[in-house]
Amino acid sequence: MTRTRPARLKPGDTVAVVAPAGPVPAEPLDAGVAVLRDWGLRVEVGKHVLDRHPDVPYLAGHDAHRVGDLQRAWCDPDVAAVICARGGYGAMRMVDLLDWDAMAEAGPKVFTGSSDITALHQAIGDHLDLVTVFSPIVAGESFDPTAQKYLRATLFEPESMLSLTGPTVATMNHGTATGPVVGGNLSLLSSCVGSSARPPDDAIVLLEDVNEEPYKVDRMLTQLLRAGWFTGVSGIALGSWTGCGEPAEVYAVLADLLGGLGMPTVWDLGFGHVPAQLTIPLGVEATLNADAGTLTLTEPALV
Amino acid sequence: MTRTRPARLKPGDTVAVVAPAGPVPAEPLDAGVAVLRDWGLRVEVGKHVLDRHPDVPYLAGHDAHRVGDLQRAWCDPDVAAVICARGGYGAMRMVDLLDWDAMAEAGPKVFTGSSDITALHQAIGDHLDLVTVFSPIVAGESFDPTAQKYLRATLFEPESMLSLTGPTVATMNHGTATGPVVGGNLSLLSSCVGSSARPPDDAIVLLEDVNEEPYKVDRMLTQLLRAGWFTGVSGIALGSWTGCGEPAEVYAVLADLLGGLGMPTVWDLGFGHVPAQLTIPLGVEATLNADAGTLTLTEPALV
Repeated sequence: MTRTRPARLKPGDTVAVVAPAGPVPAEPLDAGVAVLRDWGLRVEVGKHVLDRHPDVPYLAGHDAHRVGDLQRAWCDPDVAAVICARGGYGAMRMVDLLDWDAMAEAGPKVFTGSSDITALHQAIGDHLDLVTVFSPIVAGESFDPTAQKYLRATLFEPESMLSLTGPTVATMNHGTATGPVVGGNLSLLSSCVGSSARPPDDAIVLLEDVNEEPYKVDRMLTQLLRAGWFTGVSGIALGSWTGCGEPAEVYAVLADLLGGLGMPTVWDLGFGHVPAQLTIPLGVEATLNADAGTLTLTEPALV
Repeated sequence: MTRTRPARLKPGDTVAVVAPAGPVPAEPLDAGVAVLRDWGLRVEVGKHVLDRHPDVPYLAGHDAHRVGDLQRAWCDPDVAAVICARGGYGAMRMVDLLDWDAMAEAGPKVFTGSSDITALHQAIGDHLDLVTVFSPIVAGESFDPTAQKYLRATLFEPESMLSLTGPTVATMNHGTATGPVVGGNLSLLSSCVGSSARPPDDAIVLLEDVNEEPYKVDRMLTQLLRAGWFTGVSGIALGSWTGCGEPAEVYAVLADLLGGLGMPTVWDLGFGHVPAQLTIPLGVEATLNADAGTLTLTEPALV
């Protein structure tokens, strides 16, 4: 599998900020937009980004409005990147309402976000066969200076971001694997079983989650295992498990369920709901060296 | 779809109590076993029912031991019913390790339990094409006198339990539907996407959950909807949503997602994690009258 890589950004480019999932607080949004402007980007904020659904308060407005903002941004030839303001929950509800044919016609562009946005990364991979950028959301505390630095470098100078690792990475299972990087948030990956494609051959899978008890992490992984989702996967890079119980307990669950797969696996590569989180492109080929604790991209994320 | 109905119980029958999921506390287990003995049953308690997994504390022992207990009970010709001590989490981990051919050969028998045990109800339906009994677990507070009465009547005098309803049932969507009853715990139904069959034609679906935030209830339902799981479903009976947020909030989520299906739907039929919970057979044909708030079985659960 080789996915199409969108063009890198350059100062003066226009980007669109959208909210496909949970409601966005105004202050962190302004702060995130200011950072993007500091990078020399022109920023358009979607019409409904500050909406809140009247009956379902965990949504940033109606499904149709969240769809409309993303669709308009994607199909606007002046927009070089679609940037998600935050995750939360809601991307799954709107993903099948997008006009994928129109988006395919609009041609490749950069897409960034993480957490709940995993559902959109999956769908863009499935429908448009594009490389996307698993990155911090821009309207939140997690968009800290180091996380900003990684995202900026990936977007503007992607050849400077080929070797990815974190300060507390550890080997969970030895070995080396090479293949396309996929995955993201475990809840969303398990929730997309039945509507998204399984990982491509030799895939290196990213997995992280937030605020899920260990038994729920088990349930989600068990869903993926029972559905044959790990068939063909060649390596696993685990991220953060913030609010998922004691690290030792989560480690035990993951080791118990994934150990039997016998594939190169690292613990805590440095992405997910964690300060200084890495930006990692999805759909690009990479080598996971579980002994060295590194994920090395074969080519830059963007052309 | 007409599933095979196992034989009803009679005093003197032997039943086996097993723990396919979470660890079982000794005192409620003794209390539950005492109730079953009061009904005139001989009770065998599985060898590993009081185990706890050394590394994964939310499991009642190793997967292989939980499998062994259930498998031995099912394949013992002297055992008329396999009764789950409690739910929690863990049935999904062991369900594919059972020897379904051997269990098919052992012939029909009664199976009871709920909550996490939904994964086993699904698998017994898929593999053995049997009617099972969605009922209170016997080692817990929920096995209160009224819940006991319903389970006992279903097991011994099933023709007395054809008309099922609860004290606070309400119409969510008008109409009447007839078909086989399936479903159970929403978390488990969504987690079985990719490994269990979809509901049969005209199915009436039971849905309930416990300790899941509204946005997680949304995520699980959205998984089922996106996977086409409701295709062919003709009616929905909602149970309890204990610990899933304010009732009005959960109601809004369910109405938002299910309302568009336009099928007969009742709110709070009286099953799930709730005192005086109903026992409801799965796989038996029934009529859901969403205006009257009743689920009426076409035939007794057991022959």
